[in-house]
Amino acid sequence: MEYSVTVGGKRIRPILLLASCEAFGGQEEKALQVAAALEMIHTYSLIHDDLPAMDNDDFRRGKATNHKVFGEATAILAGDGLLTYSFELITKDQQLTDKQKVYILLELANASGPNGMVAGQLLDMEAENKESSLKELELIHSLKTGKLLQFAVKIGAYLGGANPEQIHQMEKFGYYLGLIFQVQDDILDVTGDENKIGKPVGSDETNYKSTYPKLLGLDGAMKQKDAYHQLAVEALETAGVEGSLLRELTDYLGNRDY
Amino acid sequence: MEYSVTVGGKRIRPILLLASCEAFGGQEEKALQVAAALEMIHTYSLIHDDLPAMDNDDFRRGKATNHKVFGEATAILAGDGLLTYSFELITKDQQLTDKQKVYILLELANASGPNGMVAGQLLDMEAENKESSLKELELIHSLKTGKLLQFAVKIGAYLGGANPEQIHQMEKFGYYLGLIFQVQDDILDVTGDENKIGKPVGSDETNYKSTYPKLLGLDGAMKQKDAYHQLAVEALETAGVEGSLLRELTDYLGNRDY
Repeated sequence: MEYSVTVGGKRIRPILLLASCEAFGGQEEKALQVAAALEMIHTYSLIHDDLPAMDNDDFRRGKATNHKVFGEATAILAGDGLLTYSFELITKDQQLTDKQKVYILLELANASGPNGMVAGQLLDMEAENKESSLKELELIHSLKTGKLLQFAVKIGAYLGGANPEQIHQMEKFGYYLGLIFQVQDDILDVTGDENKIGKPVGSDETNYKSTYPKLLGLDGAMKQKDAYHQLAVEALETAGVEGSLLRELTDYLGNRDY
Repeated sequence: MEYSVTVGGKRIRPILLLASCEAFGGQEEKALQVAAALEMIHTYSLIHDDLPAMDNDDFRRGKATNHKVFGEATAILAGDGLLTYSFELITKDQQLTDKQKVYILLELANASGPNGMVAGQLLDMEAENKESSLKELELIHSLKTGKLLQFAVKIGAYLGGANPEQIHQMEKFGYYLGLIFQVQDDILDVTGDENKIGKPVGSDETNYKSTYPKLLGLDGAMKQKDAYHQLAVEALETAGVEGSLLRELTDYLGNRDY
């Protein structure tokens, strides 16, 4: 558990959660445990995702994957442990009221469970060796990657004191942010630098996965990313936080080189 | 998820939870969702436990294990999904207050996570091919099997309206119940009928696992079971519920033939 949590990574989800909290005037400290729990959920999903029975990846974040270091059985348990512990962390967070805890736990379970990330993972597997439509790609990625990003910005806003309409806009923002993130992931798998990304490029090709560049061409994928970007920024504007760090993070996620 | 939840099984944990609730004068209906969530946690642990990287079992409850039917990747996700959904179910339980939900979620995470069942699972793996002492066996099983049984009777009592001292006694009761359950499991792996158990006997021998019969002999294991049984019944008596269905369930778990 500790190995995979501390091995590094961009910490995008906790950063987004804290930035969103701050954008609405909240104190980052109040959201810190929830942000840690979210990163644990993300880390568990990577550990299980990397297993031989799933994507069979030997490297992640430039380091050996969990099962390469500790063996498959321990990696499965490390993932199970992180998933369970993330819920424990939120129930024990002394800065939250019981009402807040229940709301956040429900949102987290929903985002990461069989109606969220787990569903996205399954759809992603089922889509291998098939050509997916743009709609199908969007569904897969909005679940697999988008749901946790959505949770990050939505719950950050909630803890920062956003009103219901603002929270709704942040949900929309998170949805498009997830798609931006994924298009860029797909683009990097074609054009990226292996040394920067920390894992081999071209694995989508090897795994016969549908990607934005395959479906739309590299140019088309770039244009699609711009379209998502515009919709994301519009949601930020409607929520009244277009001047915040969230805007910079959106630009960064769409143009990152790793 | 549905396959493994509905394939059968003894439903011991939810039955214990409901019986414990009733023993303290509570209404079973109030505890039904929590009982279902508990059975889902148990089922997830079986799915992951049966995986090739773990115990590599082809049969469970007389039926093909999850990964034999759906493949390893789907089985891993089904377990992840059930684990996450069990927390979701409790957060959505309309019969509980937020305070009750948070208390129950914390207890469930603690019982099933890296300080509970997941730790027991890891210790169990690490104990393979080694001779364990009675103390080590008790630690492994109190975590691996005991923690969820403890949760069942403790939270049943809590929802039934037990006072703190009674809840403390039920925790003790659950601890010994877990050990009784495990001794009998070990005994059945030596003397049991494969057709009744629904999985091959003698697998402990094949997997080089330390068991009560190996450590104490078959007679010694029986005696140890009786000692646990006495301590379990004493806890029930102190809690004032020795006349309840819980007493019968204790006798049943110690003498079951599958």
